Amino acid sequence: MAEISLRRARTMIRKALEHARGAEFKPMAVAVLDSGGNLIAFEREDGASPGRYEIARGKAYGAVMLGMPGSAQMARAEAQAYFVACANGALGGGMIPVPGGVLVKDSKGRTMGAVGVSGDASENDAAAAKAGIEAAGLSAED
Amino acid sequence: MAEISLRRARTMIRKALEHARGAEFKPMAVAVLDSGGNLIAFEREDGASPGRYEIARGKAYGAVMLGMPGSAQMARAEAQAYFVACANGALGGGMIPVPGGVLVKDSKGRTMGAVGVSGDASENDAAAAKAGIEAAGLSAED
Amino acid sequence: MAEISLRRARTMIRKALEHARGAEFKPMAVAVLDSGGNLIAFEREDGASPGRYEIARGKAYGAVMLGMPGSAQMARAEAQAYFVACANGALGGGMIPVPGGVLVKDSKGRTMGAVGVSGDASENDAAAAKAGIEAAGLSAED
Amino acid sequence: MAEISLRRARTMIRKALEHARGAEFKPMAVAVLDSGGNLIAFEREDGASPGRYEIARGKAYGAVMLGMPGSAQMARAEAQAYFVACANGALGGGMIPVPGGVLVKDSKGRTMGAVGVSGDASENDAAAAKAGIEAAGLSAED
Repeated sequence: MAEISLRRARTMIRKALEHARGAEFKPMAVAVLDSGGNLIAFEREDGASPGRYEIARGKAYGAVMLGMPGSAQMARAEAQAYFVACANGALGGGMIPVPGGVLVKDSKGRTMGAVGVSGDASENDAAAAKAGIEAAGLSAED
Repeated sequence: MAEISLRRARTMIRKALEHARGAEFKPMAVAVLDSGGNLIAFEREDGASPGRYEIARGKAYGAVMLGMPGSAQMARAEAQAYFVACANGALGGGMIPVPGGVLVKDSKGRTMGAVGVSGDASENDAAAAKAGIEAAGLSAED
Repeated sequence: MAEISLRRARTMIRKALEHARGAEFKPMAVAVLDSGGNLIAFEREDGASPGRYEIARGKAYGAVMLGMPGSAQMARAEAQAYFVACANGALGGGMIPVPGGVLVKDSKGRTMGAVGVSGDASENDAAAAKAGIEAAGLSAED
Repeated sequence: MAEISLRRARTMIRKALEHARGAEFKPMAVAVLDSGGNLIAFEREDGASPGRYEIARGKAYGAVMLGMPGSAQMARAEAQAYFVACANGALGGGMIPVPGGVLVKDSKGRTMGAVGVSGDASENDAAAAKAGIEAAGLSAED
């Protein structure tokens, strides 16, 4: 399986932020993680609050570690809060189980990593992540 | 009390995975823990997400440390979420209180350890764990 | 005091990596932190090991939180290892007290943040960070 | 880059343990991690102490996250103890910087993951890891 190159991670971030500016979202942060949950690239826009890295990274981290996008994590959290609380403990406290953690898939459906976006409403965050992933020629599962 | 030998732990994992393949479950991870909550053996199938170790191990860990299989932990979590949250804190954040954490018992009913499985629906995870334990000639409490 | 804008952080990263490529350093990671120690931007080159984020961020974090570049932290660690060990504990375990954590200063000498670089020998990491900061029109204290 | 398949991880473990038995090493534990530092497979022999998972995993984890085998980490620790102490903090406390953490390389020299072995003297642990990796048709950097 191909890894996400830095070149493609940059495209994802630039296009996610262009989407956010075009839609007049609040200032955003975008993290791109590889298939092992490790950070490839990150940007936080001027005016975004300082903890946006932790939130954006957490959205992407939970997605890639569990193979489950933020929307599915949120559904699980609403059905079984204790499961998600405990999964978060097992994963070192880094999950953010809401939309905006979007899986990056290759053409065969394999998970290459995840993009996490934070700054505006969760649905808008997810839309920006998806726009970035698709602009890089990959598939998004949000 | 006899401990679970590595030979038997291997059998549990191999047979749990055979069960999963026969039933066409998603890619799985299987952890076998001893009576002290420590890892004897683990395998993660190709295609399973990278955080499956933490989830499978957490299912087995909570089971052996509390002497209570995942299904019983889940019932307790639904009745008293705060108890399970605090037990999880006391146990270092590693519990996953849902089915798929299955106790391994000897012929006298003593707990020898636990098997934790993660990858598909919790009930399917538990069925795979049970199949593995029974194939190794031991009793499962799920 | 002006903050480091995302635009300038991007310039620092791009120019630090150009310096590294020109000098044929190993694959690198570059983190830019603001005056509060929070991440603005990060990039990890293809082929850099996955833990490079933690090392690059740690170099910049210790620098900005203590107002002391990596070289000065290293001198302190060599003189008083227990001080640095305990400062690291107090700062949450994130310091990396070696060259490559470089302070970003404005024209009045005030600390605006720090750049952390990891990938090659510490001195080379520091040179890349310095090149990035100066290319963005700011002063570097390494 | 190809990932280490479970099939190959099993071969590495089986052959590392065969090496250990042939050389009459003490009871051993062997962990195989992927390129992102996540566990693929693990086995602990009967008679090995219960904390061997944490040691074996830590050897492999530090190796893959820093792209540096245990012997190189040990040299760094002897030259700059505070660097390794702090890197360990940045990596969540999981490094074990001694021989026995061996990188797994593909035919182009890219890191596919790492094998960590613990149980006997560090040099013997490293020899067992190397034997396992080479028996699986891959290159070892120890």
